[in-house]
Amino acid sequence: MPQFLDSSDSDFEAKFAALLGAKREDSPDVDDVVAGIIADVRARGDDAVIELTTKFDKLELTPQTLAFSAEQIEAECAKVPADERAALELAADRIRAYHERQLPKDERWVDVSGAELGWRWTPVSAAGLYVPGGLASYPSSVLMNAIPAQVAGVERLIICAPTPGGVVNPLVLLAAKLSGVDTVYRIGGAQAIAAMAYGTDTIAPVDKITGPGNAFVAAAKRRVFGKVGIDMIAGPSEILVIADKRNDPDWIAVDLLSQAEHDESAQSILITDDASFGRAVAQAVETRLETLERRAIAGPSWRDFGAVITVRDLAEAAELSNRVAPEHLELCVEDPEGLSQQITHAGAIFLGQWTPEAIGDYIGGPNHVLPTARSARFSSGLSVMDFVKRTTLARMTPQSLKAIGPAAECLAISESLEAHGLSVRARLDRLNEGAS
Amino acid sequence: MPQFLDSSDSDFEAKFAALLGAKREDSPDVDDVVAGIIADVRARGDDAVIELTTKFDKLELTPQTLAFSAEQIEAECAKVPADERAALELAADRIRAYHERQLPKDERWVDVSGAELGWRWTPVSAAGLYVPGGLASYPSSVLMNAIPAQVAGVERLIICAPTPGGVVNPLVLLAAKLSGVDTVYRIGGAQAIAAMAYGTDTIAPVDKITGPGNAFVAAAKRRVFGKVGIDMIAGPSEILVIADKRNDPDWIAVDLLSQAEHDESAQSILITDDASFGRAVAQAVETRLETLERRAIAGPSWRDFGAVITVRDLAEAAELSNRVAPEHLELCVEDPEGLSQQITHAGAIFLGQWTPEAIGDYIGGPNHVLPTARSARFSSGLSVMDFVKRTTLARMTPQSLKAIGPAAECLAISESLEAHGLSVRARLDRLNEGAS
Repeated sequence: MPQFLDSSDSDFEAKFAALLGAKREDSPDVDDVVAGIIADVRARGDDAVIELTTKFDKLELTPQTLAFSAEQIEAECAKVPADERAALELAADRIRAYHERQLPKDERWVDVSGAELGWRWTPVSAAGLYVPGGLASYPSSVLMNAIPAQVAGVERLIICAPTPGGVVNPLVLLAAKLSGVDTVYRIGGAQAIAAMAYGTDTIAPVDKITGPGNAFVAAAKRRVFGKVGIDMIAGPSEILVIADKRNDPDWIAVDLLSQAEHDESAQSILITDDASFGRAVAQAVETRLETLERRAIAGPSWRDFGAVITVRDLAEAAELSNRVAPEHLELCVEDPEGLSQQITHAGAIFLGQWTPEAIGDYIGGPNHVLPTARSARFSSGLSVMDFVKRTTLARMTPQSLKAIGPAAECLAISESLEAHGLSVRARLDRLNEGAS
Repeated sequence: MPQFLDSSDSDFEAKFAALLGAKREDSPDVDDVVAGIIADVRARGDDAVIELTTKFDKLELTPQTLAFSAEQIEAECAKVPADERAALELAADRIRAYHERQLPKDERWVDVSGAELGWRWTPVSAAGLYVPGGLASYPSSVLMNAIPAQVAGVERLIICAPTPGGVVNPLVLLAAKLSGVDTVYRIGGAQAIAAMAYGTDTIAPVDKITGPGNAFVAAAKRRVFGKVGIDMIAGPSEILVIADKRNDPDWIAVDLLSQAEHDESAQSILITDDASFGRAVAQAVETRLETLERRAIAGPSWRDFGAVITVRDLAEAAELSNRVAPEHLELCVEDPEGLSQQITHAGAIFLGQWTPEAIGDYIGGPNHVLPTARSARFSSGLSVMDFVKRTTLARMTPQSLKAIGPAAECLAISESLEAHGLSVRARLDRLNEGAS
């Protein structure tokens, strides 16, 4: 059974604070190992990557077989059943259509002083996507990472995906093909991150690395941050559902379980204004857990980190949700639009009872790479913006420099930065000569 | 004398690569010390902050005097000379006007399936700005950090600014007042970062921390990243000037020196298509260095890291500049607009000879917090976007769920995520019941 909390209880605040502060993930400290792997790849390039792949993935590669060949990719893609191919194509199309609306616009204008100002967006030149092997090798994640890069106009897009024992997921390769990926390297772990950040003879370095991974991958991303850009370091998945009693308890139960089944550290929270509805949902979860394929994962997640919170009204539900700043937020209430106006921090909102969160994982269009661990307070999900950068533009005319230059000189002198002031003064003097 | 390179020389590529790879900064490893300070502040709150301020800043504070009072701020602001006040006000107005154009727009639309999609932007609730003490206590940086937060709609905006020995920079307090800062705490170092990230009895925690600082501050920001958002970890400043012979060598010389005077690790590079113009600029730099107030800083920076590169033509200049991905780029050429079209990576571009980079430091309008150390390849300068975050929105109707739900179910099953599929299936079954 999960925790049951009631906002009317005298000890609620303490219990809710404990829920917020609970450490759900115990990352092993692999930083030293990772530092060694990165140094090795920097020093020995392909040789190091190949040796580490033999060691960790039991796979013998050569520089020529580090990447899948076009023929291999075609052969694997041909194995994908027609219904899965159609579903993946629909997902890719919808994700692309959504993300194309995110492309930012360049701006230019002339201000009152006559200065021309603005900014311009350009894509990152090369991006590398990490795709985990084994259980967490999700083709949907390939689409969610690669399509925003493709839409942004990234020139070179590569994937590193380990294939332990040589086992390949054909859907991953098909997803890569559908989203414009140039090359798929069959390597993983910290060695793949190091190869993408620093380059080897075979793998040209990239400028930005995104994608989920295990503790080794996360530690390597942290270490190469600065040398290249990275996306967030994702924590275990979370869902918060705000539901009134006008819902089928079973629907809400499977929604909660759809996060719980990801990971024993995942967290599913229900907030409701009806205590008996909350109990009915908890009961429905237990029923579903009896037969759920992943009950060995979803069960512990629900028991250890799940919570059912009863509140006085939906306004209070929104307040509590904002303190959680959940990755996924379902609003299964009569007026989801109205309630959503009270939400200030959430990665993604799913409006109304016909929008299960799983729609967002696959096919809705929005990205499923979202801020976890309360970081929706200050960060956003993955988007086209992660693969572009802004260059600001300024152009002074002699007249605008005359108008605003003296103030710049004054501030430069106040900060004891003489050369800053002189760079303005030299030009102003010329203008004054011209005027005399 | 700086390095002189010529792109026609046979060893140019090796020399240019060495210039790109040169390590200019030797950060002391203070990570262990910083870890200890953060742990201390988390454990003992105000007491730890006060003790560390006594130790490092020789300043005795109490919880009541951690922040400047409104009276103290008024008294300090009254000391600012009229011309400096006017200059700072003009700068604040221009920076605000520029950044107001960055406010992103919410979007909502209904797609072909009938699904309602979109996103919504909300401000970070609370932001903390770090302002270094001593020499690097720049009022312009207060404006550049605080105004984007103010424009974004951040509710609570605080500053931590150490005042070693109790010495205050009145312009910093005036800049804070002009940009809507709520509270200025007179604390600094890793203890200030820890206090802002984790909170103390006196200082409520914030969600995002920005602003430059020394090695202790940088290490502390790295450590609290994830608990709160941070801006970039800034490296030493850089300028790259592309100039043809139609420029006054002295203007270009002071522009180069305006970065060199920041820091012995700063880097100033001139790329020109005229070797003799390059020599004339280098000569002009030497002349200016004879009398420059900060020659003890600018001289070593120019000699150790400065470079004058002669190229065949301006297209080659743009190519080399893109490999550098400079923080600041001046295009002092006949057709700066045309050349700027060839620039793919730069933090800020200054177009034409009437736009010295110092205009951008103070008064142009664009932000002066910009990506250093080649990170303009994948990141942007500070902006309103750093203080807002996007929540994606999706709302299915029964009809749209019928249209796209089966594909989501198919992909969920292919990824062995049964509960994901069930959350869609439960709803589809209801719709099918309704239809039968």
